[in-house]
Amino acid sequence: MKQYKVGILGATGAVGREMMKVLEERNFPISELRVLASARSVGKKLPFRGEELTVVEATHDAFEGLDIVLGAATNALAQEMAPYIVKAGAVFVDNSSAFRMDPEVPLIVPELNPEDAKNHKGIIANPNCTTIVTLTALGGLAKHSKITSIIASSYQATSGAGAAGPVELMDEVEALAAGKTYEPKVFQYQIAYNVIPQIGGNAFEGYTSEEMKMQNEGRKILHLPDLKVSCTCVRVPVVRSHSVSVVVRTEEKISVEKARELIAAAPGCKLVDNLDAKQYPMPLDTSDQDLVFVGRIRDDLTDDKGLNIWCCGDQVRKGAATNAIQIAELLIEK
Amino acid sequence: MKQYKVGILGATGAVGREMMKVLEERNFPISELRVLASARSVGKKLPFRGEELTVVEATHDAFEGLDIVLGAATNALAQEMAPYIVKAGAVFVDNSSAFRMDPEVPLIVPELNPEDAKNHKGIIANPNCTTIVTLTALGGLAKHSKITSIIASSYQATSGAGAAGPVELMDEVEALAAGKTYEPKVFQYQIAYNVIPQIGGNAFEGYTSEEMKMQNEGRKILHLPDLKVSCTCVRVPVVRSHSVSVVVRTEEKISVEKARELIAAAPGCKLVDNLDAKQYPMPLDTSDQDLVFVGRIRDDLTDDKGLNIWCCGDQVRKGAATNAIQIAELLIEK
Repeated sequence: MKQYKVGILGATGAVGREMMKVLEERNFPISELRVLASARSVGKKLPFRGEELTVVEATHDAFEGLDIVLGAATNALAQEMAPYIVKAGAVFVDNSSAFRMDPEVPLIVPELNPEDAKNHKGIIANPNCTTIVTLTALGGLAKHSKITSIIASSYQATSGAGAAGPVELMDEVEALAAGKTYEPKVFQYQIAYNVIPQIGGNAFEGYTSEEMKMQNEGRKILHLPDLKVSCTCVRVPVVRSHSVSVVVRTEEKISVEKARELIAAAPGCKLVDNLDAKQYPMPLDTSDQDLVFVGRIRDDLTDDKGLNIWCCGDQVRKGAATNAIQIAELLIEK
Repeated sequence: MKQYKVGILGATGAVGREMMKVLEERNFPISELRVLASARSVGKKLPFRGEELTVVEATHDAFEGLDIVLGAATNALAQEMAPYIVKAGAVFVDNSSAFRMDPEVPLIVPELNPEDAKNHKGIIANPNCTTIVTLTALGGLAKHSKITSIIASSYQATSGAGAAGPVELMDEVEALAAGKTYEPKVFQYQIAYNVIPQIGGNAFEGYTSEEMKMQNEGRKILHLPDLKVSCTCVRVPVVRSHSVSVVVRTEEKISVEKARELIAAAPGCKLVDNLDAKQYPMPLDTSDQDLVFVGRIRDDLTDDKGLNIWCCGDQVRKGAATNAIQIAELLIEK
């Protein structure tokens, strides 16, 4: 079996480290793993397959010889490095939002639109974490009947803001218990024992950038240019795994029973739906694994073509690292 | 000014104690406050206007001479005592859900349907806390154009489960920090660093009792028997104040600008809506006061008659104690 030379750009961050774990777990055929980051992380050691890899600087010529580069860096670093990665002959599977809406760049959730990966010109984008979790949950329904609209309210974990997010949550909890004050640095306000209805900046008519991603990226991934999405993104004091309350409308009515069947059979999903037995998705149960749990499925009481759904998924894994490596697997399968 | 003899049934619980605070704050004209509870609380002392009141047992003949009884007890106790309260000649303003859907019993949010209080036959019901917070937020819109549907996802504080809720949250946080396990007693699962998408039991086609209250009670309060509500109720690790993400559709389109005007002018509401300045309602800011904060107002991108709204309110106060005392104030105004 062919072995690949793989790079991770931004290897020291939360998503970069998770990518190393997932590559190892999934036995990705790697002959070299090059871990790249900005100058201040150079020399750091990162564990991989029982060894320690040394972080090298992500310079313009640092990508020579690589087949695939997984991007887990900022938009700015992704934009700066992309031309050099492509020039070096590698495919750049990028988790930043820099290229997601570029018409030349496929945007992939492998369970939904793997065929789009074929049309890449050197760059493939990994979608937004909340979008991946929600669309993976809806994938089985989308294949059965065209989705016309989605209304979503999210319950997003602190780790969605990077490794510093949960640290701030825990530091706040500790400070509050000691009767001390804590000045938030990662989040706009205290997140411990609070919820904050803002993720991202003001992007479109009062919607935040995070909220608009589900509509914009959803249209591209599902090939539904007219898809309508109303999204409210909210940070909650959870360490890991995003939850989403979704109302989805389809062209033809899907019954609750049929929806359960479709979701149970959909790749990447686990049906957890028995209210009487207190079984439903919860962020504590969906962390550190790759499936999106889906439950609380019921008819939308406001529209006869709608369904109400609750889903949870680990946004560092399926929402970022795992999805990117699934994209890389599509490339090597060719 | 006439002074009233007031009783509180279930005075030792979270809502009962808050009722005593609110009666004092609002200077309710009281000549006697009788604090009643079940046998095990008899003899407890509760502070009121600088004195200590002694809890007496809520027996069938404990209501003699009272003008108004505020109910903060269980459904069972409310149901048992209601006939004796009415027989004693008092009006029973009950916060339990026992009588809310009884066609003989008015269900009141004073900002919305104060006139319904006139038709009472001895019992007036206080609505569900999440319903009160949401409908108070929507009151200004409802008076401008008929509401046709509501889609709501809630972020409900642990104190919604009574005084033991926040205690369990804090005990869990402490146990987890010490590396110990904690067996949940109040909530179905660990609530610290988690969210739980179940409040109440399975009530109607997969919806919980809490979720159906917004439709059933909303129809009665708004006098809209055809109102459609799809609700998802979720417990979050917040101490106090419920938050709700709402999509509301009206018969005629209300613009964002008009909605801001209507909400700013609506009784019981405070408009907090400036995303660029990071101003929006949050549970930390709405606790221990009576206004429902409303913000993140924007057009529903899935329906041209819809608006997206985010609101927060203290469910122990406006969602329970304050609303009940506002109802009592309607009675004495007559």
